[in-house]
Amino acid sequence: MEYLMAVKNFLLGLILLTCSGAFASDDPSPLQDFCVADLKAPVLVNGYVCKDPKLVIAEDFYTSGLHLERNISDSCGSGSDSISVIQVPGLNTLGISMGRVDLDSWGVIAPHYHPRASEIITVLQGTIETGFVTSNPENRLISKVLKKGDVFVIPKGLVHYQRNIGNGHAVALTAFNSQNRGVVTVGNAVFGSKPSISSDLLAKSFQVDENVIHQLQAKF
Amino acid sequence: MEYLMAVKNFLLGLILLTCSGAFASDDPSPLQDFCVADLKAPVLVNGYVCKDPKLVIAEDFYTSGLHLERNISDSCGSGSDSISVIQVPGLNTLGISMGRVDLDSWGVIAPHYHPRASEIITVLQGTIETGFVTSNPENRLISKVLKKGDVFVIPKGLVHYQRNIGNGHAVALTAFNSQNRGVVTVGNAVFGSKPSISSDLLAKSFQVDENVIHQLQAKF
Amino acid sequence: MEYLMAVKNFLLGLILLTCSGAFASDDPSPLQDFCVADLKAPVLVNGYVCKDPKLVIAEDFYTSGLHLERNISDSCGSGSDSISVIQVPGLNTLGISMGRVDLDSWGVIAPHYHPRASEIITVLQGTIETGFVTSNPENRLISKVLKKGDVFVIPKGLVHYQRNIGNGHAVALTAFNSQNRGVVTVGNAVFGSKPSISSDLLAKSFQVDENVIHQLQAKF
Amino acid sequence: MEYLMAVKNFLLGLILLTCSGAFASDDPSPLQDFCVADLKAPVLVNGYVCKDPKLVIAEDFYTSGLHLERNISDSCGSGSDSISVIQVPGLNTLGISMGRVDLDSWGVIAPHYHPRASEIITVLQGTIETGFVTSNPENRLISKVLKKGDVFVIPKGLVHYQRNIGNGHAVALTAFNSQNRGVVTVGNAVFGSKPSISSDLLAKSFQVDENVIHQLQAKF
Amino acid sequence: MEYLMAVKNFLLGLILLTCSGAFASDDPSPLQDFCVADLKAPVLVNGYVCKDPKLVIAEDFYTSGLHLERNISDSCGSGSDSISVIQVPGLNTLGISMGRVDLDSWGVIAPHYHPRASEIITVLQGTIETGFVTSNPENRLISKVLKKGDVFVIPKGLVHYQRNIGNGHAVALTAFNSQNRGVVTVGNAVFGSKPSISSDLLAKSFQVDENVIHQLQAKF
Amino acid sequence: MEYLMAVKNFLLGLILLTCSGAFASDDPSPLQDFCVADLKAPVLVNGYVCKDPKLVIAEDFYTSGLHLERNISDSCGSGSDSISVIQVPGLNTLGISMGRVDLDSWGVIAPHYHPRASEIITVLQGTIETGFVTSNPENRLISKVLKKGDVFVIPKGLVHYQRNIGNGHAVALTAFNSQNRGVVTVGNAVFGSKPSISSDLLAKSFQVDENVIHQLQAKF
Repeated sequence: MEYLMAVKNFLLGLILLTCSGAFASDDPSPLQDFCVADLKAPVLVNGYVCKDPKLVIAEDFYTSGLHLERNISDSCGSGSDSISVIQVPGLNTLGISMGRVDLDSWGVIAPHYHPRASEIITVLQGTIETGFVTSNPENRLISKVLKKGDVFVIPKGLVHYQRNIGNGHAVALTAFNSQNRGVVTVGNAVFGSKPSISSDLLAKSFQVDENVIHQLQAKF
Repeated sequence: MEYLMAVKNFLLGLILLTCSGAFASDDPSPLQDFCVADLKAPVLVNGYVCKDPKLVIAEDFYTSGLHLERNISDSCGSGSDSISVIQVPGLNTLGISMGRVDLDSWGVIAPHYHPRASEIITVLQGTIETGFVTSNPENRLISKVLKKGDVFVIPKGLVHYQRNIGNGHAVALTAFNSQNRGVVTVGNAVFGSKPSISSDLLAKSFQVDENVIHQLQAKF
Repeated sequence: MEYLMAVKNFLLGLILLTCSGAFASDDPSPLQDFCVADLKAPVLVNGYVCKDPKLVIAEDFYTSGLHLERNISDSCGSGSDSISVIQVPGLNTLGISMGRVDLDSWGVIAPHYHPRASEIITVLQGTIETGFVTSNPENRLISKVLKKGDVFVIPKGLVHYQRNIGNGHAVALTAFNSQNRGVVTVGNAVFGSKPSISSDLLAKSFQVDENVIHQLQAKF
Repeated sequence: MEYLMAVKNFLLGLILLTCSGAFASDDPSPLQDFCVADLKAPVLVNGYVCKDPKLVIAEDFYTSGLHLERNISDSCGSGSDSISVIQVPGLNTLGISMGRVDLDSWGVIAPHYHPRASEIITVLQGTIETGFVTSNPENRLISKVLKKGDVFVIPKGLVHYQRNIGNGHAVALTAFNSQNRGVVTVGNAVFGSKPSISSDLLAKSFQVDENVIHQLQAKF
Repeated sequence: MEYLMAVKNFLLGLILLTCSGAFASDDPSPLQDFCVADLKAPVLVNGYVCKDPKLVIAEDFYTSGLHLERNISDSCGSGSDSISVIQVPGLNTLGISMGRVDLDSWGVIAPHYHPRASEIITVLQGTIETGFVTSNPENRLISKVLKKGDVFVIPKGLVHYQRNIGNGHAVALTAFNSQNRGVVTVGNAVFGSKPSISSDLLAKSFQVDENVIHQLQAKF
Repeated sequence: MEYLMAVKNFLLGLILLTCSGAFASDDPSPLQDFCVADLKAPVLVNGYVCKDPKLVIAEDFYTSGLHLERNISDSCGSGSDSISVIQVPGLNTLGISMGRVDLDSWGVIAPHYHPRASEIITVLQGTIETGFVTSNPENRLISKVLKKGDVFVIPKGLVHYQRNIGNGHAVALTAFNSQNRGVVTVGNAVFGSKPSISSDLLAKSFQVDENVIHQLQAKF
């Protein structure tokens, strides 16, 4: 199964259709020291079934390459990557994961959210603006410009974005309290779903002409 | 505080700026039979502090009016309403709430999600299409046309919508596994935040001209 | 296995030996968008194992018939029904479910409780009295007469009942914060278990003559 | 407040109106080493607010007297006692508690359940039969005769009982995975609530003459 | 697998290399009445997969022998034993377990902690000192001398010990809010791991000569 | 209260008596978008009470300085620092935090564990060996040498360490799934508690002469 053939070090960033980001949980508690995911097991459960603990090796808790610059040649000038249970099977049942964000000059990680995790972010290089929007009815934008060494937190399930507000490459590291935070890029979900949400429904929802919706859908 | 002055039977539907819906949690467990929210207490906690249990009355677990048609005169031809801890203080710590959706002919509840709850919906009247979109990278739309007595479930944190695909008023009841599911209407969060997300960031994110973004922002 | 052969749309109401009700959770959180229950899988876990996500269809999140009147010809003049993970496999890991209660004139849903969920109830038709009893030592009855559109909440694990206190059929919808709230009808558990709890133990517990216990046991 | 004036070493057993037992959780996790309950604080929350950690003393985690025989002079020939957060404030947020059961010859702990905990029991003296009943529709009684050193577990929220099936005093120790398991003695809740559940409702529920119900209610 | 071949009544005490103790959780909630562990199942999950509920018997919730004196002939003059899910498969998903501690005159249960549970302890015989140490930076020792019938609680994850501070055999019963609390004996983990932690790292950590570390490692 | 006077940007690293590290939870879920900790509130709860949401500002979710080298002049040649709820009040209820580790050539973070969180670590500079030890009875050391960009995960509650196995300064970033992971440095807890654990108890526990214990205690 495609769902199971995911391999270590696979770049989740590649799966983002347009230019979505990748970043946030309160998973169920572990009932043993660890339960390393058996990603190829035929039995599927909430999370993953465990490898035989006698066969567990240090590499199950490990991956490499988080220092490498991500591909930022997409239309948003950004790339993002996830170190989740798929990349590090030892994360299964442990409720934590990491990620990395690369941004070209003025590149953006489009508005998105994580249905299963809060996110904490720190800037390694460059100057990055990030912000999240509170739920209805306030929809208050709480944002901050972050320089190297600055840290910001994004509450679980709220829409947020990042962008490089300077020249030169910018890099941030992120962490999430879920083994599989999930990423919903708003544009992808609303304008790029397969099949599409009907354009007249979207036109009414966004109160614009259907042509505008078609224009948006064409991009996703 | 505004946050605290919310009164019973206040219609959360009114707070939806454009035409968002209102609907889905796994809250912490109760440590006593009940902890009825003291909505006016000066001390704020995760959820609410409790009323003195000796002063608790049956009305604390009660509200009325869920059978009443909601105002559907907005631009989306819909209205929605929430029976959360604000309306029924007895819901505090219990991890459950309800809601109601009213839809005029072809009215829609705009794409939205609930950061803190899954949703179960049943149609009381009319014919309603509802669907949710899975997270990246699939962004698969899973939708269904529901008639009277049909039931559908929307997983926690995923974008979903409803629309009346027939003539005449349509009504649905919803339930959520949180005392306060939260509602993020995608359009409000992205194009209607206060302050606004910068239009050039949005233009790049949605890969459209900034004029299109301005057009969208003007509506929210 | 009988446990596994349960089929969609199976009426849980039928399983109530006398006239028990059917309705209340804080289930573990999901670790992916959904984990649709594979009800026929040979491997049994807490909840259910998941169907291959590529084979998931909209119908997995769906059921019908909640508008249909339940059979109320039992001795209590009531019928109840559950929309749990057995009826809607997509509810697995999502921590929510629904139910319906039908009551003939003066019909009752006998005292019962849900070990794994709180309940929220709204009346669709008729006038229904409902109440719950707090735990020791108070054993306070908190009850309310509900008319159409009224909403009431019953805390997790507390004994409660419903009855139609008017003429004509009455109907209520219920929701629960568990995929499988469980129903313990007090009479069934105490006087109708298989095998029976010894009658002298029950006589001493209820401080009545053993004949009274035999009389009660004969009904279950 | 009565709710708050509970003092250490107060015998919860005394609060059982007839002859109920006292014994079973998955409470929210602690966010610091400990949060010793301030039982007299004016602010009420889910569980209890914390004492200033600098004022915490070893006695906050301590109580005595679990070896003392409980009063078994009630009509059931039994006594039970709880070591919960009320007795040991240090238990607050820790999700565990203990109890003790004393049974005269053929004495019983009447059918009851714990809405917020599973129970594990071990016999210190004598021979005790204990059993629990599964939820609808099976209502299967799973019981066992326990001798000194035997251990048995009772799942969260299921009706169970104990009785001394020999001559001489019997004693058991119990533990529960909640700081406040709650006790619902079925007889007290159904026939002894304040105010009473209407006798005709109960007559229909238990399918017996109203006189039988009056007889039962008179005892509680 | 060794992990799976563990049999009922197996004495976990035997597995303690030197003289560690054995004793404290907030496991995920059950989604059905019970999920008795199938300890020999080939599929491994967080906790255990369930036995077919139709094949469940009372013995699955049972074990014996908690009254029997444990072997205290080790170098610490103590023995400890666990009644966890391995000994009582019915404990699976229920979040509770028990244990027993035996101490010879001046015997000790070496400093240890439980990564997945809080502990409550009561003395059955003798006089036992027990204490726990808070986390950094205070590292405050909170200790108490316990006599027969005394109860003490040890917060989740904190280092603690027991010792018999009198003559004659001493016995305590313990309970934990996890089906599998885990035991980390500090000495075993730091000086007795397989393979060893390098002695120069330990010398620097404990600020002593490497010879001292070698002396400590030789004992484990 | 000292507990409350902690101020933003306070370096938790300073609180480590000898050379302990600082790094790993599954906290209760949020019941609103955020509940920014009011660190000076007189009411203490599990976690912290919330600031009035109307007074919340972006700075509540922010801190700076994670890029700054920590003081590594202690006897272990290391320094560590925590970005927890004390430094970033917005982390309250969100279940996530960060940290930083600095290691001089051959410097070590002494064996320690986090009672309330798992940890994920990535190396920014240098070559760092890290390892964790499983619980009894295996006490297996699972370790790995990490270079720049490598990632490793340490399960909740297990003893672990870091050391710089090369020349030159080494730096790592860490993240934890708790707002307040807690740090227990094994040496501090066992040999440096206030008051001390009795040396003869420790001598017996570690099977060494009491002089060795005195030597160890003198260092803490």
